[in-house]
Amino acid sequence: MRLPNYICDRWIESKGEGVPLVDPVTGARLASVGSDGLDLAAALDHARQVGGVALRQLSHAERAGMLARIADLLSAGREAYFDISRRNSGATEADAGFDVDGAIFTLKSYVRAARNLGDTRGWVEGGEVPLSKGGNFVGRHFLAPQRGVAIFINAFNFPAWALWEKAAPALLAGMPVLIKPATPTAWLAQRMVADVVEADILPAGALSVVCGGARDLLDHVREGDVVSFTGSADTARRIRTHPAIVERAVRVNVEADSVNSAVLGPDAGPGSAEFDLAVREVVREMTIKSGQKCTAIRRVFVPAAHAHALADAVATKLGKVTVGNPAAEGVRMGPLVSRAQQAAALEGIAALRTECELVCGGGENFEPVGASAGEGAFVPPTLLFCADGERAEVAHRVEVFGPVATVIPYADAASLARMVRRGEGSLVASVYSSDAAFTDALVADIADLHGRLMLVDAAVGGDHTGHGNVMPTCLHGGPGRAGGGEELGGMRALGLYLRRHVVQGSPERIAALAAGCADAALLSA
Amino acid sequence: MRLPNYICDRWIESKGEGVPLVDPVTGARLASVGSDGLDLAAALDHARQVGGVALRQLSHAERAGMLARIADLLSAGREAYFDISRRNSGATEADAGFDVDGAIFTLKSYVRAARNLGDTRGWVEGGEVPLSKGGNFVGRHFLAPQRGVAIFINAFNFPAWALWEKAAPALLAGMPVLIKPATPTAWLAQRMVADVVEADILPAGALSVVCGGARDLLDHVREGDVVSFTGSADTARRIRTHPAIVERAVRVNVEADSVNSAVLGPDAGPGSAEFDLAVREVVREMTIKSGQKCTAIRRVFVPAAHAHALADAVATKLGKVTVGNPAAEGVRMGPLVSRAQQAAALEGIAALRTECELVCGGGENFEPVGASAGEGAFVPPTLLFCADGERAEVAHRVEVFGPVATVIPYADAASLARMVRRGEGSLVASVYSSDAAFTDALVADIADLHGRLMLVDAAVGGDHTGHGNVMPTCLHGGPGRAGGGEELGGMRALGLYLRRHVVQGSPERIAALAAGCADAALLSA
Repeated sequence: MRLPNYICDRWIESKGEGVPLVDPVTGARLASVGSDGLDLAAALDHARQVGGVALRQLSHAERAGMLARIADLLSAGREAYFDISRRNSGATEADAGFDVDGAIFTLKSYVRAARNLGDTRGWVEGGEVPLSKGGNFVGRHFLAPQRGVAIFINAFNFPAWALWEKAAPALLAGMPVLIKPATPTAWLAQRMVADVVEADILPAGALSVVCGGARDLLDHVREGDVVSFTGSADTARRIRTHPAIVERAVRVNVEADSVNSAVLGPDAGPGSAEFDLAVREVVREMTIKSGQKCTAIRRVFVPAAHAHALADAVATKLGKVTVGNPAAEGVRMGPLVSRAQQAAALEGIAALRTECELVCGGGENFEPVGASAGEGAFVPPTLLFCADGERAEVAHRVEVFGPVATVIPYADAASLARMVRRGEGSLVASVYSSDAAFTDALVADIADLHGRLMLVDAAVGGDHTGHGNVMPTCLHGGPGRAGGGEELGGMRALGLYLRRHVVQGSPERIAALAAGCADAALLSA
Repeated sequence: MRLPNYICDRWIESKGEGVPLVDPVTGARLASVGSDGLDLAAALDHARQVGGVALRQLSHAERAGMLARIADLLSAGREAYFDISRRNSGATEADAGFDVDGAIFTLKSYVRAARNLGDTRGWVEGGEVPLSKGGNFVGRHFLAPQRGVAIFINAFNFPAWALWEKAAPALLAGMPVLIKPATPTAWLAQRMVADVVEADILPAGALSVVCGGARDLLDHVREGDVVSFTGSADTARRIRTHPAIVERAVRVNVEADSVNSAVLGPDAGPGSAEFDLAVREVVREMTIKSGQKCTAIRRVFVPAAHAHALADAVATKLGKVTVGNPAAEGVRMGPLVSRAQQAAALEGIAALRTECELVCGGGENFEPVGASAGEGAFVPPTLLFCADGERAEVAHRVEVFGPVATVIPYADAASLARMVRRGEGSLVASVYSSDAAFTDALVADIADLHGRLMLVDAAVGGDHTGHGNVMPTCLHGGPGRAGGGEELGGMRALGLYLRRHVVQGSPERIAALAAGCADAALLSA
């Protein structure tokens, strides 16, 4: 089966052999994709000139109505998407739900957020700025949709969610979308686009999908386009330094590596509610989606006195997680998404072991349930212990993208903050403590290097939304190594697709331009 | 005279010969600057660890108080600054005022904007985000000062204003500043820093100045730093693609080239108020600071029937502008800032002449008043006429950074919009028309490619603030060729120096963290 691309409102198969998509449980070929021979310059021009124009003519309410219809459509197709997720990503039921239901939940969140926008189109920001003494000349700031294409170059781990968490705010803002899903798991994104196209929900030109390599795509970007990338720091560098991106000052949003932290407070010893909450969360983060989440916990900082107890408790729970073919009875964790990812994870574990001890897992002689180790991309849950975190290098720098975490004991708050900061910019840190003074001081010490902080104590208990769960209403993104980007945060996400300008003129002209605009204060309410 | 650098709270002279600063009227050497031998890594570390920490401990009111004292200090030193501006920039009294008084005005604007912030430090943005059904787990967004250095790499044309329009919001936000003024006119910025240091207004580490080459400065930037650059597209490219900038995801703000437009409406024929207002503004934009403003009018779009009349009217007024040594009687326009800039401007005029006719000026055999053409960097006001703007290339692409503009006739509104858009992103466009339908339609057609639009009609008359004047309360910056950056816009400017994060936790913890924060809605009020 060759999956076609959708550009210029036509389904086009690539030339050449294409790249096979593989079942990571068995190694079986499922389909192939490719982008050879596509006219990507024409694809972008069509999106700009047909899709963009049509979307900008729609009101916010009309655009939100389309998102609602997409959410309903995806809900109706849920079983088919779960099946693709199982086959192409080796997903368990929970993994598939995390991606597919997460996408639907996020779309619905944007429909809800837009419910008060009605018949508005652009945005007016702030009040009149007085510019003349007599009041006959004033300024006012506006936000308008950029007149290019929102280009999403996405990672393999969330083919569904990553598409829609980006597309929802882009379409709502009034920009057409071209999605280039990661090749190994492109099927699910391609299928969702196909279903939306088939259902004729969006205007012509508003949605395109290119599977396989990006080829010359970036050569054709220009001012007004937006490139939103999720993936490796290496690819991020190539995007940021691409001549067309640089010369046209194209807006780029990046989410790259992140060595996220979980921190137990000095009070969170064995027997405390916070200790148990932390253990549960570390285990969950390591095993859901086989640890293939950019937000997953990679470093677990524990007071030195409790570090071994925490490691033992996590290892005990990990020992009860059955790993193998998600179709087999009792299996709770599946493979990584590909043999290449398996190799990279094992390499990362080896690097960590140069400065950490292995607590459990590791990968040698591992036998998955209901699958063959020689055919599948399995890595067992692997916990490491880094006795000297202040001297460690790899533990703070290398994100092993699999079911892998490292316990790092800390001596005092100053040393803890120093070590957390050595992540050099992360998506998220979670803190498990009922010591408010400790928590508040730690937040002050590390917030600038994180996009999100989750504070868990007994009062919150099990009602928190999860260290690694990205809520559509909360910012997702982090500085430095994490790429410096911003996604979601409710209506804040529209900001990436809008551009600010100021108009100066008579109060009459300014008022005429502001008519029909929504209040930009709603973007950060 | 060798001008020393101020880093690590010490005045340090560079090693080596240095670079001479020259009087562009006479070619005389005034002083020299250099950065050889400076430890720029240490300079940045000192700013981060001493200046940043100290600034963040101050309240917004305390930081604003320091800006007020700087404004008073600069007002007191105004005569000395005018003198440096005259000597090192060849400025007329009006030119010097544009830069020096503009700096003071902008500082005072930030003092005024901050007057309601009181004893706050960080920022809380929007309300509580509900995250659990029982209400015991919520999220909230915060903006906090980045913990690096605000590095300003500035252009030669505004040594005073460009320093303080950037430093005012950075210091108010809580970031230390390191300024690297453009070498040819570094004296004024260096002198202002020296005066502020001498007056002991800011905490240690909060202000540094490096004159001469940036050398290895960017090798030492890291996450949390901000680089704000104003200058050529070529240097912008080198900054954006610098390995440390790319790998650390350092926030970069760029203001580069801009081929700004002025547009006369179909109604704005000879004899109309709008025609006269346009003529006056074009002449002013061409001659103030000898046209060395990134916001200056470069293209003048005129209905075909009136294009020659407009060109004649502008040329007549330009003919009355005496160009020469600003110290000489009656001189209204001085030289460019250097012989290198003169050569670049003459080269640009030659390029324009490949597709435009010369209306006046040009530069051959030009004799400045009170100065020698062979010694000074003079270029006469030069107006060109481009009969076929749709086929032209250079007129839409090349920013000649001097007293140079091109009149371009247009046939209809569609052709006009097409041609204006060929600037591929500009800082500003101004429209002179009493035809509201024409104006509103043009705004809709071009706003996405501009940072600012100024709409002038008879009701506004002469009370507008000027095509090229950057008001501190209005956005300054533009997409695409203009660099994609944003400056000023009142408190919006603080956003470049703040970073957003979300904290999730119990309502009690979130409330504790929000205490003492200002409401981020004030940033875009």
